Amino acid sequence: MSGDRDLSGLFSPDRVAVVGATPREGSVARAIVENLAAFSGSVVGVNPNYDEVCGVECVDSIAEAGDVDVGVVVVPPHLALSAIREAGEAGIENLVVITAGFGETGSEGASRERELREIAAEYDLNVVGPNSLGVLSTATDLNATFGPDRPLSGSISFMSQSGAFVTAVIDWALSEGIGFADVVSLGNKAVLDESDFVRAWGRDDRTEVVIGYLEGIDRGREFIEAARQVTDETPVVLVKSGRTDAGAQAASSHTGTIAGSDRAYEAGLDQAGVIRAETVQELFDAASALAGQPLPEGDGVAVVTNAGGPGVMATDAVGDSSLRMASFSEGTLDRYGESMPAEANVYNPVDVIGDADIDRFREAIEIALEDGDVSAVAVLSAPTAVLSYPDLAEAIVELQAEYGTPIVTCLMGGERARAAKSVLSEAGIPLYFDPARAIGSLDALVRYREISEREYDDPAEFDVDTERARAVLDRATERDNRVGVEAMELLSAYGIPIPEGEVVSDPEEAERVARSIEGEVVMKIVSPDILHKSDIGGVAVGVAEDAVADTYEDLLTRARNYSPDATILGIQVQETVDLDSGVETLVGMSEDPQFGPLLAFGLGGIFVEILEDVAFRVAPISEREAGEMVEEIDALPLLRGARGRDPVDEGAIVETLCRLGQLVTEFPEIVELDVNPLVATPEGVVAIDLQLTVEQ
Amino acid sequence: MSGDRDLSGLFSPDRVAVVGATPREGSVARAIVENLAAFSGSVVGVNPNYDEVCGVECVDSIAEAGDVDVGVVVVPPHLALSAIREAGEAGIENLVVITAGFGETGSEGASRERELREIAAEYDLNVVGPNSLGVLSTATDLNATFGPDRPLSGSISFMSQSGAFVTAVIDWALSEGIGFADVVSLGNKAVLDESDFVRAWGRDDRTEVVIGYLEGIDRGREFIEAARQVTDETPVVLVKSGRTDAGAQAASSHTGTIAGSDRAYEAGLDQAGVIRAETVQELFDAASALAGQPLPEGDGVAVVTNAGGPGVMATDAVGDSSLRMASFSEGTLDRYGESMPAEANVYNPVDVIGDADIDRFREAIEIALEDGDVSAVAVLSAPTAVLSYPDLAEAIVELQAEYGTPIVTCLMGGERARAAKSVLSEAGIPLYFDPARAIGSLDALVRYREISEREYDDPAEFDVDTERARAVLDRATERDNRVGVEAMELLSAYGIPIPEGEVVSDPEEAERVARSIEGEVVMKIVSPDILHKSDIGGVAVGVAEDAVADTYEDLLTRARNYSPDATILGIQVQETVDLDSGVETLVGMSEDPQFGPLLAFGLGGIFVEILEDVAFRVAPISEREAGEMVEEIDALPLLRGARGRDPVDEGAIVETLCRLGQLVTEFPEIVELDVNPLVATPEGVVAIDLQLTVEQ
Repeated sequence: MSGDRDLSGLFSPDRVAVVGATPREGSVARAIVENLAAFSGSVVGVNPNYDEVCGVECVDSIAEAGDVDVGVVVVPPHLALSAIREAGEAGIENLVVITAGFGETGSEGASRERELREIAAEYDLNVVGPNSLGVLSTATDLNATFGPDRPLSGSISFMSQSGAFVTAVIDWALSEGIGFADVVSLGNKAVLDESDFVRAWGRDDRTEVVIGYLEGIDRGREFIEAARQVTDETPVVLVKSGRTDAGAQAASSHTGTIAGSDRAYEAGLDQAGVIRAETVQELFDAASALAGQPLPEGDGVAVVTNAGGPGVMATDAVGDSSLRMASFSEGTLDRYGESMPAEANVYNPVDVIGDADIDRFREAIEIALEDGDVSAVAVLSAPTAVLSYPDLAEAIVELQAEYGTPIVTCLMGGERARAAKSVLSEAGIPLYFDPARAIGSLDALVRYREISEREYDDPAEFDVDTERARAVLDRATERDNRVGVEAMELLSAYGIPIPEGEVVSDPEEAERVARSIEGEVVMKIVSPDILHKSDIGGVAVGVAEDAVADTYEDLLTRARNYSPDATILGIQVQETVDLDSGVETLVGMSEDPQFGPLLAFGLGGIFVEILEDVAFRVAPISEREAGEMVEEIDALPLLRGARGRDPVDEGAIVETLCRLGQLVTEFPEIVELDVNPLVATPEGVVAIDLQLTVEQ
Repeated sequence: MSGDRDLSGLFSPDRVAVVGATPREGSVARAIVENLAAFSGSVVGVNPNYDEVCGVECVDSIAEAGDVDVGVVVVPPHLALSAIREAGEAGIENLVVITAGFGETGSEGASRERELREIAAEYDLNVVGPNSLGVLSTATDLNATFGPDRPLSGSISFMSQSGAFVTAVIDWALSEGIGFADVVSLGNKAVLDESDFVRAWGRDDRTEVVIGYLEGIDRGREFIEAARQVTDETPVVLVKSGRTDAGAQAASSHTGTIAGSDRAYEAGLDQAGVIRAETVQELFDAASALAGQPLPEGDGVAVVTNAGGPGVMATDAVGDSSLRMASFSEGTLDRYGESMPAEANVYNPVDVIGDADIDRFREAIEIALEDGDVSAVAVLSAPTAVLSYPDLAEAIVELQAEYGTPIVTCLMGGERARAAKSVLSEAGIPLYFDPARAIGSLDALVRYREISEREYDDPAEFDVDTERARAVLDRATERDNRVGVEAMELLSAYGIPIPEGEVVSDPEEAERVARSIEGEVVMKIVSPDILHKSDIGGVAVGVAEDAVADTYEDLLTRARNYSPDATILGIQVQETVDLDSGVETLVGMSEDPQFGPLLAFGLGGIFVEILEDVAFRVAPISEREAGEMVEEIDALPLLRGARGRDPVDEGAIVETLCRLGQLVTEFPEIVELDVNPLVATPEGVVAIDLQLTVEQ
């Protein structure tokens, strides 16, 4: 289920066997045999009841099928496992299991799927499905699906956790002129999953864009690694559904996907370099632009229009995006001034006004393309009597080819626009009625350019005292899987500063510790049963040395009064940290079922609890990622010296996040951890309190 | 320019005159005459050079044109004003001024436009434009525009501040099957503007939905009143462009619209009951649903699908919207259990699975329609061999008509879907490929239902001491248009609590005031030249009675040292307000060029300054609106007792907002005002500091 699989045989086979081929009208197996008629390689059926199915030779057993690269399994569920084993015995490396009745049904199905996985491992099989619609690849006209249509050839490869969505997309894409390289219906993902296909398509020369519809990602960290390797050259755009609570519930009942938190998906997909689309429209708008247009070199966009209103709308859309309106050079403005009529607006958006003919329009686009700050152009037009859309489309195609700068268009109209659309889409240039969608497709290009230029540093690794950490954790969790301040040394073993102090269990010890600390001390009840220590008077601050023993007894009495049965682990005697001079932050971690340890950072108190101003990343993280977490929160100015305070030591926060990432990665039994607060001052950070839970 | 104009003559004339009619090929005037050929009434040209233009009788002067209801003015700019005056003399009530060269050009044009406005006022003319593409109305086949197409007849009326956008939309709408009642290109809005058309269409029986593209709203408060009157029965959906900084700049250079703040538009449009669309696509998705479907009675939606994946996507979209997934009754679940196969999912989203034929699909939709919690249904389908989309479309149309519940659809596919689309759009049922768009169109229905049910209470009006307020304001602003705490009594004259105290100008007075106040006092420098009093030690807290005189001198010395030339208005001696027990809030106002006084509310300090957690409303406001302001902020829990504190007196905040709204409405010379902080405690509120600016 992991590692780097060679799937070239799956998508470019020479010979395909349909195991369970039958001529029965309306059967899935017949549909597959018929769909394979156009395949450029050879096809063989396997079914002892027939010598031939729909013109395809049929043999009695898989062993007799010859040198088969892909076996498509369409037998009833109770026969599927033996068919797969036979295929393994016969040396077939790639199987597409159409048969349903596995994990998506009851417990019998689930155990059948477990067995399938075991057989696949035994024979090292690449298995698609089970419960898959099939696979197809346009290079060899391979259509090993039971879907109704054959797609156009193109450079987009598409995976989907919903087979029905594959049929819907192929039908729709045909009418939109969108073509595909490979398509796979992932089915139950018993063996091959999204990580495998992302890797395989990253290596595939025909695939220029990977897109997908996923309801869950099974191996989060593995997926991040796989996607990072390919997204420097191949964009990956995904709809991951179940974004909302209602959607997550529906996804879970659809495919049995365990609902991971969407914030983990959000963080994980971003760290993977994946462009996440929220809707089907966004998915294909982004994919079409990425497949058809070059990447812009910068983020400056010129809008050239013959209509002011649409120009303003496009400008708004630029404001919503990661693009910006290009700022023209004096030379550009002069050229516009010379060639455009006086009523034209030569500032960006350039309005060539309603009486512009093709020559003026072409010149205006060309001048924009030659400006040094323009990395992309959006051409907008309303219908006028003096302008032919097909002419304008031809001019745009030529200019795009000549300058190699990405262009998107919004030639507004109905029938009038249709003729232009075929010219433009032939050249991979997007055309939309809505200016916002045209700009949105440019935005996908800019976002991907940023991703393609990313450097993924290795996670920061520090020299830590793992053995001491292990000892602290073992001791602390001996009696309970939830521990608190008594395990603070775990943090210092990983180089995260904690206040000087100790947990003591008699007044004399308390005095000894207090003597060793300069200044007044803070004393706290340490008890797993008392969560809100302050509320019951379980915290004493500013305790002078001579009051330590009395305070010890006092705190103990309060704790016993509050909760006679509470386990008291002792009293913590700690140096006084000046909270007022610092900013209270929170660094934490919780285990996500798909992505593993998910780190969180935010400011303490209301910022996390009420305003939910928190940044997340899947651990371990690099210094760069930790820095991004800090920069992501809305309250950042409070760390940077807002309201007349000195800026805190952000570097120390970044280092703490990295060290914490290393800690939770090296101790996977920690399923939840909160350092709250971690006080940040101009001089550094210090962890004041800790709560953690280990898996039992 | 204000008041309630009768525009029925404009859209339903019997006789139209084209002033400046000419047969010149390619001229705007000829295009208009030709477009009027289909008009069911009579048309006359006015041009002394012709007896006839393109088959239309032509007279020498407007006076000879007969009983004309609408005059379309297409003469050159220098002739336009006299033509308009002649029309006024001749008793023509409605004019559409196509002629450009007014306010959109230089200062000559601007003065021409001023004159046009004066003539219009003199003769009480309804003038569209100038610089308009024209008007059209499908009821009488009136097309008094120079656009190239005639739209389909429908129930949507459309106004646009961009003429080019009108031609683009009409062309596009033709191919989408979207029809219109009336269309107007607003041009420069010298006389008639969006408020007039919203009012007129609200009364028009043919208009079921008003939509518009606006770059600015000229008379904000007037527009709010106009829209409120119609939106209980007629939805208004607008794109107001210039949302972003870049967009606002582009809009301003396009139409000369003064860029008002988008937060004023956001607040004003919401208070007006307008649904604001961000994009052209959103505009027409909302308009089509509103024109074609009834309003849902509640917000529960059922999703019925033959494909799990699209069902999950639709559910996500529901999660993003103001809808919720309906929760089926036991009876509904039983019915599904009986009629659906075992593999079907009978919980919402209902998955009738891929082998569903038309009968099963129809039954599943019908069961959903009969559930008590279902107020709307989204039907989704992927293409399958056993289902015909046209059949499904027919069934949906029948069921929608039978049950009267709104239905939207997502029959996914290309060619396959096209046949279904015509059946569905005939019945006003939206069809989209993207489940998110289908749900989005339902969302517009639910949002409009909420608007149609709104009660607009009158602004709260309190018994206040306007005279005292006037006196305080006059005195305070005698020497400077910016004033501070010295005008605090302005607030108390409007019933907003302020601390006990006075501004004094000698130590003895200070002592007298301090004696009259219980407990220690706070003393502050009062100077328009010293903004940050605390920073220079200009504030003394906890001053005991016997220290008042010394403190007085001390504060004065500090102020003089800091700024020898500063005007010192005195020292404020104030009762001590316990800030710690309260929450610091900010209530403020700034004058917006379009909407007038814009009230703001947020928590003080970082919440407003850094997190920008602020709610806005156009003043004056009702108690309900003030309550919504308070509830809108993210930090609301801090007012409601988060973190173990007692909830503050929200009612007192609401009342303060209303009283402040009344103050700034009754004193329009106040262009900026900040009460910061207004301290809110469980017992009420008190204004601690004030800054205000009056117009000079």
